[in-house]
Amino acid sequence: MADKILLAHGSGGKLAHDLIKKSFVGMLDNPLLAQMDDSAVFDIKGRLAFTTDSYVVNPIFFPGGNIGKLAVCGTVNDLSMSGAKPLYLSLAFIIEEGLLLSELKQIVGAIKATAEEAGVKIITGDTKVVDRGSADRLFINTAGIGIVPEGVNISGSNARPGDKVILSGTIGDHGIAVLSKREGISFSTELESDCAPLASLVGEMLKASRNIHCLRDPTRGGLATTLNELAEQSKVGIRIEEAKIPVREEVVGACEMLGFDPLYVANEGKLIAVVAEEDAEKVLRVMKRHPYGKNAVVIGEVITEHPGRVVMKTLLGSSRIVDMLTGDLLPRIC
Amino acid sequence: MADKILLAHGSGGKLAHDLIKKSFVGMLDNPLLAQMDDSAVFDIKGRLAFTTDSYVVNPIFFPGGNIGKLAVCGTVNDLSMSGAKPLYLSLAFIIEEGLLLSELKQIVGAIKATAEEAGVKIITGDTKVVDRGSADRLFINTAGIGIVPEGVNISGSNARPGDKVILSGTIGDHGIAVLSKREGISFSTELESDCAPLASLVGEMLKASRNIHCLRDPTRGGLATTLNELAEQSKVGIRIEEAKIPVREEVVGACEMLGFDPLYVANEGKLIAVVAEEDAEKVLRVMKRHPYGKNAVVIGEVITEHPGRVVMKTLLGSSRIVDMLTGDLLPRIC
Repeated sequence: MADKILLAHGSGGKLAHDLIKKSFVGMLDNPLLAQMDDSAVFDIKGRLAFTTDSYVVNPIFFPGGNIGKLAVCGTVNDLSMSGAKPLYLSLAFIIEEGLLLSELKQIVGAIKATAEEAGVKIITGDTKVVDRGSADRLFINTAGIGIVPEGVNISGSNARPGDKVILSGTIGDHGIAVLSKREGISFSTELESDCAPLASLVGEMLKASRNIHCLRDPTRGGLATTLNELAEQSKVGIRIEEAKIPVREEVVGACEMLGFDPLYVANEGKLIAVVAEEDAEKVLRVMKRHPYGKNAVVIGEVITEHPGRVVMKTLLGSSRIVDMLTGDLLPRIC
Repeated sequence: MADKILLAHGSGGKLAHDLIKKSFVGMLDNPLLAQMDDSAVFDIKGRLAFTTDSYVVNPIFFPGGNIGKLAVCGTVNDLSMSGAKPLYLSLAFIIEEGLLLSELKQIVGAIKATAEEAGVKIITGDTKVVDRGSADRLFINTAGIGIVPEGVNISGSNARPGDKVILSGTIGDHGIAVLSKREGISFSTELESDCAPLASLVGEMLKASRNIHCLRDPTRGGLATTLNELAEQSKVGIRIEEAKIPVREEVVGACEMLGFDPLYVANEGKLIAVVAEEDAEKVLRVMKRHPYGKNAVVIGEVITEHPGRVVMKTLLGSSRIVDMLTGDLLPRIC
């Protein structure tokens, strides 16, 4: 077998079959995937959640993860943000000719490990190879299916005045970790991406309360953009306090140096929960007990004023409107 | 609004929201998509089929279709080949900066029209934009969910000796149409891709018989590779007759000129059905009545000899083994 991906690995012919059998089906071993039919078929009943994302992060290896880990976390998290328990993923590769097979294997290894952690199975897939220069090393798409437990009703349009806004931890880690790797910036301590599957954290939160109204992971566009989406969808205002928002020192430093605002930098292992006031403390408590929520904090609340807007009390005590991201801060961050 | 796709269209920020709302959610209008949560949520019960494919065809516009039409047909057909009625698709774009918005709109228009024809709804999506040179204009991924009717059990491993092998029409049209456009080869009559959604054809076939054992669409790798997959999965031999296989004159001509074998050229609107002998005539009859099956023909049968192999009686009367595709005949054909 060649040590690099060739065009023929995407041909649908012999080399493609060998690659799929040895590197994918073998590693991601499960009976549904091993059947190798055009679709995976399984029994299900209930409220299903369905989502997709493509991953084009550059570089494909970064501190704290790689594109494979990211591709599982991102889609698992989108399912979790609907209150669903993630069950199944599809996995589609677009590979630039010349990618090292050893790199691909490392990425598939991360996919396997992350899927196991998140409790999801990869049951169907696709591999395309494009000629050199027609893609940048590797793009991955995952789509996911999850099941929404009875009684759970989570949507970006469910925020109500009086609800508390909880953030699960520090912001900006993923964006700054990827950027620093890409641009060759080094910190005195290594900053890692927060890339993580949030399925079990959300599972614990839902066990604690059925009064969680919205869940969303602040990925592209960062905390500011995500809060704006929620305010817009729910036609409410959101008021947050800058002093409450946890940001790592290295992220603050990098943002100052680069002229970024951490509010707009992408996260891949954080969530925002909008929770009915009476249950906020209870939800916060279970979050703090979970490794991916240990720095969780209430950063603000939902208000009737300023519908569709996010207002922030700044460190200096003044109030300002926090808008959605305009332009592109950091391309190819996920 | 700019007339070209900018990096900021993939940022998750304002431009991205505008693009998604105006060009995608607006055009592909349906309540599940319009909710704009991280996942689409719906009730379902039964045997589900789940599949995915990425589309990297070059050029993105070709005679008989474009990458958008292809992205719907390919995934709808993979669901149909499991005997499933396709219900929902996800739709994910990776766009190279600089793509004309007018081209993107034309592609989304084809997606809309093809989804309507196939009876599927696009309910979740994603848009990424990469810098110029990091992708080739546009890649699309679709994943699909369908429901397998009670009593239907179709798999590549179900072929039994004695079964008849039916091909739904001419082979090689898609591959040669795309290649001729890419290389600027012209024919006296314009050859078009056969790209088509086969959901309704399969629906009619399943109404006629529950003794359809395998269904598969001969895409990448062509008829020869697909028959080899079925022979291998079912551990049977397959014998076909070259004289029975319909190939358009233009495709024969182009293949002779280019040194290709039509058996290995991709199709996007054809299927192979392996059907119990007693129902083969009945299935063939309903296929011939459908616009996408009017040239359907029995091309061979399943045998006990040569397990895992495909044997062809050639035009000259001799027999030869038809192997899986080795190497890559036509990169980026789908």
